[in-house]
Amino acid sequence: MALLSRASKYAVNPIQEEDEVAMRLIRSGKKVIQINRGDPPSYFKTPKYMIDAFVRALRENHTGYANPLGITELREAISDRYRRLYGTDAGTDKITVTQGVSEALIFLNSMLLDHGDSAVIFKPFYTQYLPDMQFYGGKPIVESYEERLGWNIDTDSLSRRLRSGANSNRIKYMLITNPNNPTGTVLSRKVLEELVDLANEHGIVLVSDEIYDEIVYNGAKFTSVAELAKGVPHVIIGGASKILDATGFRIGFMMVPGEDRASVQINGAIKNLARVRLSANTPAQYAVAEGLRNSAEHKKAIGSMVKSISERVNFASKLINESGYMHTVVPNGAFYLFPRLHIGELKIKDDREFVDKLLKEEYVQLTRGSGFGARNYVRLVALPPKEVLASAIEKMERFCRRHSR
Amino acid sequence: MALLSRASKYAVNPIQEEDEVAMRLIRSGKKVIQINRGDPPSYFKTPKYMIDAFVRALRENHTGYANPLGITELREAISDRYRRLYGTDAGTDKITVTQGVSEALIFLNSMLLDHGDSAVIFKPFYTQYLPDMQFYGGKPIVESYEERLGWNIDTDSLSRRLRSGANSNRIKYMLITNPNNPTGTVLSRKVLEELVDLANEHGIVLVSDEIYDEIVYNGAKFTSVAELAKGVPHVIIGGASKILDATGFRIGFMMVPGEDRASVQINGAIKNLARVRLSANTPAQYAVAEGLRNSAEHKKAIGSMVKSISERVNFASKLINESGYMHTVVPNGAFYLFPRLHIGELKIKDDREFVDKLLKEEYVQLTRGSGFGARNYVRLVALPPKEVLASAIEKMERFCRRHSR
Repeated sequence: MALLSRASKYAVNPIQEEDEVAMRLIRSGKKVIQINRGDPPSYFKTPKYMIDAFVRALRENHTGYANPLGITELREAISDRYRRLYGTDAGTDKITVTQGVSEALIFLNSMLLDHGDSAVIFKPFYTQYLPDMQFYGGKPIVESYEERLGWNIDTDSLSRRLRSGANSNRIKYMLITNPNNPTGTVLSRKVLEELVDLANEHGIVLVSDEIYDEIVYNGAKFTSVAELAKGVPHVIIGGASKILDATGFRIGFMMVPGEDRASVQINGAIKNLARVRLSANTPAQYAVAEGLRNSAEHKKAIGSMVKSISERVNFASKLINESGYMHTVVPNGAFYLFPRLHIGELKIKDDREFVDKLLKEEYVQLTRGSGFGARNYVRLVALPPKEVLASAIEKMERFCRRHSR
Repeated sequence: MALLSRASKYAVNPIQEEDEVAMRLIRSGKKVIQINRGDPPSYFKTPKYMIDAFVRALRENHTGYANPLGITELREAISDRYRRLYGTDAGTDKITVTQGVSEALIFLNSMLLDHGDSAVIFKPFYTQYLPDMQFYGGKPIVESYEERLGWNIDTDSLSRRLRSGANSNRIKYMLITNPNNPTGTVLSRKVLEELVDLANEHGIVLVSDEIYDEIVYNGAKFTSVAELAKGVPHVIIGGASKILDATGFRIGFMMVPGEDRASVQINGAIKNLARVRLSANTPAQYAVAEGLRNSAEHKKAIGSMVKSISERVNFASKLINESGYMHTVVPNGAFYLFPRLHIGELKIKDDREFVDKLLKEEYVQLTRGSGFGARNYVRLVALPPKEVLASAIEKMERFCRRHSR
């Protein structure tokens, strides 16, 4: 008998799989450009007004367990934010604070999936979506973000798939990321409206991971599912990590605004799961509450960060598309580039070998596209300053040249 | 088809189930004595040297993702502590930082249990053990801590159970809490040695939750499983919440010291699970590292806290045993009292009704013993000052008098 559970084999994270090699290189004195992890605080200092609020909470002894659902101040700040930005009417009782989006995804899958249930995700997907679903026995239905549509969704194709599905009554949820990781695409309002209609038609809970919702540029306009899905059961996932530049605080949330039966059941199940694990970090919740509440400071911080990010993304996109060895759709949200490798022109088998050899030969750490469900793509994090990005892309070019057919 | 998974019904936390009633009472102006939650920071300020370290980490911009396995400083501090206190030789690679013991328990069950696998727990057990196991499809084998043995384990009974078990090759782990929650008992070295032998004989992984290991008094001597189980696969769970008086930091750990095949597999599975959820709160890890490393400050803080706790526990135990309506074994560890109600003498059906009515009539919030697997007991948290405990117990007595047959 195997010691470990069958599920345990699904616990993999492609973003970190080269970390041990990278560490070995760094320890041996090599300078490694690590652009595999989407960690804004590594490049932009977490705003001082939030750090001050965190320190204040510590000095005021907010160090015990918090309300398992999240402190009231934070849930109010989240509720106010959604009312202000998206006109969503969701009181604090519709919101549960989670330990990052990571925990929200575990809650989502564990509360909805029995062995053999299905859920719809779109590739390229955030690396955690597939293993988390499979860990809880889910059978993925993998639709696509279409590169030819600037990584938007072909809702006709989705509609055909849902209609043809004999087992469509076992599809529990449909999960999108908007803006997307890894493609950096902001989904169009029209696509979102069609997704809401399809979710409604097929009785599928629509889940929208909007962790990057304020990191939008190049003229794109972000639309929250919360604006469109009124009356249709939906779950909004978000958090402090990206828009408040505070990944290490581990504060996310789940919001289930609906009053319908499915929404009420889901909201109740989330709360029960939150109660079992006691609470999220207490003082961090005060910092995030202030982060959301203090609009003046937040506006300054996010404005400046998004300006830098857009410049870096556009700069790196241009270099990549000039290289001749790869091509990327230019993103209009988040901070990733997801170029397709012209793999046929290289003496390299696939994206896995590409990422592995690039790290060992050029000391640049990326993430393989197959980890996102898209073979022969790679993901770069475009957060570092331009000179670092330029150097990384130059090394990638040199690597391609050396391995070209 | 049900929307929610079958597992979701196991997500319950008896400790918080009266919270909504209590909140309603508090909002209506009632003064409620809440002694249901084991939260030291509510009564003892988290030591300043740790708060200072936390603030320093924030000011030094440790706000991004941490190493998913835990920052090196903290894993070293944990490794050093176990070497110093228990002679355990476990390097940093044997240690993974978790988001409290709560997450450690989720890791434990999800990595080891397939549907139908068994695990041994002992009642009264910490409330989370049973639902977490069932959530991941486990079939509990519930043995007992014996009140007649001062809540120690009757290892002969356990041995007979394990030998008779036709399905014993499906028992994945045996989980103890030492010192125990809710009974406050420190397990004897002899019992622990016998548990190690039984785990070894039956090929069961021994898991020891030692979160209260420094909260020991009344002449008891704590023994870590790590001291005894060398060569036998075992997992030690611990954390900052209780001994460092910092529940809201949400920092725990799992340590798997063994070099045997099972230990290596388990350690690997823990790391994979940790990588998927990215990291624990980053600055809190620096605070906990300092908490463990600064022996002089820690000794002062824990010494003073344990002195107060032992006085409060002994004081409250005496009052309870004088009341005539209930009886408790006097604890020698942790900070809970777990009295047996003389329910036959009361016009009250069971512990659930007792706890519910006590809250509504006397504004004292306890936790029902059946949540720990022990009907007609209740759990009190003996952390508050003596006058609060005296008042709570007086109200309990008055309540019993009023409802006596």
